[in-house]
Amino acid sequence: MKLWSMPSSGNSYKVRLLLALLGRDCEIVDVEDSSAALVSAKAAGRLPFGKAPVLELDDGRLLPESNAILCWLGEGTHFVPEDEFARASMLSWMFWEQNQHEGVIAVRAALQSYPARRHLATPERMAELLERGHALLQVMEDRLAVHEWLAGDAASLCDICLYGYTHSAGSKGGFEMGRFPAIGRWLDRIAALPGYRGLDA
Amino acid sequence: MKLWSMPSSGNSYKVRLLLALLGRDCEIVDVEDSSAALVSAKAAGRLPFGKAPVLELDDGRLLPESNAILCWLGEGTHFVPEDEFARASMLSWMFWEQNQHEGVIAVRAALQSYPARRHLATPERMAELLERGHALLQVMEDRLAVHEWLAGDAASLCDICLYGYTHSAGSKGGFEMGRFPAIGRWLDRIAALPGYRGLDA
Ligand SMILES: N[C@@H](CCC(=O)N[C@@H](CS)C(=O)NCC(=O)O)C(=O)O
Ligand SMILES: N[C@@H](CCC(=O)N[C@@H](CS)C(=O)NCC(=O)O)C(=O)O
Repeated sequence: MKLWSMPSSGNSYKVRLLLALLGRDCEIVDVEDSSAALVSAKAAGRLPFGKAPVLELDDGRLLPESNAILCWLGEGTHFVPEDEFARASMLSWMFWEQNQHEGVIAVRAALQSYPARRHLATPERMAELLERGHALLQVMEDRLAVHEWLAGDAASLCDICLYGYTHSAGSKGGFEMGRFPAIGRWLDRIAALPGYRGLDA
Repeated sequence: MKLWSMPSSGNSYKVRLLLALLGRDCEIVDVEDSSAALVSAKAAGRLPFGKAPVLELDDGRLLPESNAILCWLGEGTHFVPEDEFARASMLSWMFWEQNQHEGVIAVRAALQSYPARRHLATPERMAELLERGHALLQVMEDRLAVHEWLAGDAASLCDICLYGYTHSAGSKGGFEMGRFPAIGRWLDRIAALPGYRGLDA
């Protein structure tokens, strides 16, 4: 099993985090943004949708999309709730992450962090992303103010998924995390899970 | 079971289409874009993420996100492949739809169709969305040129999911569908499934 992984990306980090929490071995192939390695992985047809991460199985089959990889690796583990409705809610959060959260929280961080994108970071765009991001973080805050985890009553794939970009929303994205104390406690709970590893570990 | 559904939206249509294909009864509550009904559904807390569709179970529990609803309704039916890898690939396509396809194909259609958004439809933005949309449709075309369905070898939830906005990508989004003959044949195969209903049916 081999993971085509972008070191700086939250989408790839989610998968590395789940592998660590599950104590599973996996060869990691780094394909950093704007690197020659990324270009050749694409040219070699290893990234079916043109993006990292991709999980390559031992027989060569390729699975793209971070959240689909989480579901594949998480199947049958305690990170997938047994209760049917909790499982469905887990997927709701994961689709929401891809459709709403990532396009705002991760995009604002990328605009701040990657020098090549700085010209796209106009003051109007950054202000709009800030406001939208705070509204999205409030959706998580509302849930986490009354529950320890996003779906069901234990850590599940959607917590790992949303940790990917939320843990650095303040430091990289410039979001005011002090407004979201329940998110702060949830981030701490995830970092305390056995086997946890940080983005740069 | 009750579906909070936006009549004009592909995300809501996906769910209505699956219900029809499964021959399942469900009360439909229309919450059209910019309508008073939408405002009151939000105020009444029926849309947990502030968007339609939402499936309300008979006991009042709420499930947001079109693709999570598809998974919930599709579980145990022939629209979820038995093969593990085909099931994982189905989810890949569904996450890709939310992360890549919807934000380009559906957004360009919305900018053309909803008068309230016309001012956002600058020529530069529409040209960029056209180019990105054609690249995304090419990803589907490449798969469908050699397989009848997006995942595995039968119609599954990801076909219904991607049908939602792809079937009107030409008429509403202005994409040049003539370039994608395999997508055209796939759209016809879906429209021929027993129980099929169109967006306005
Ligand atoms: N929906 C995808 C998104 C993956 C994605 O956007 N990957 C970016 C890095 S965060 C990438 O590979 N960019 C390289 C490129 O587009 O050339 C997922 O969750 O895996
Ligand atoms: N990721 C969501 C997106 C849903 C969505 O964007 N719904 C739009 C209509 S397509 C909506 O409810 N808009 C109303 C609003 O934002 O006030 C899903 O797939 O269900």
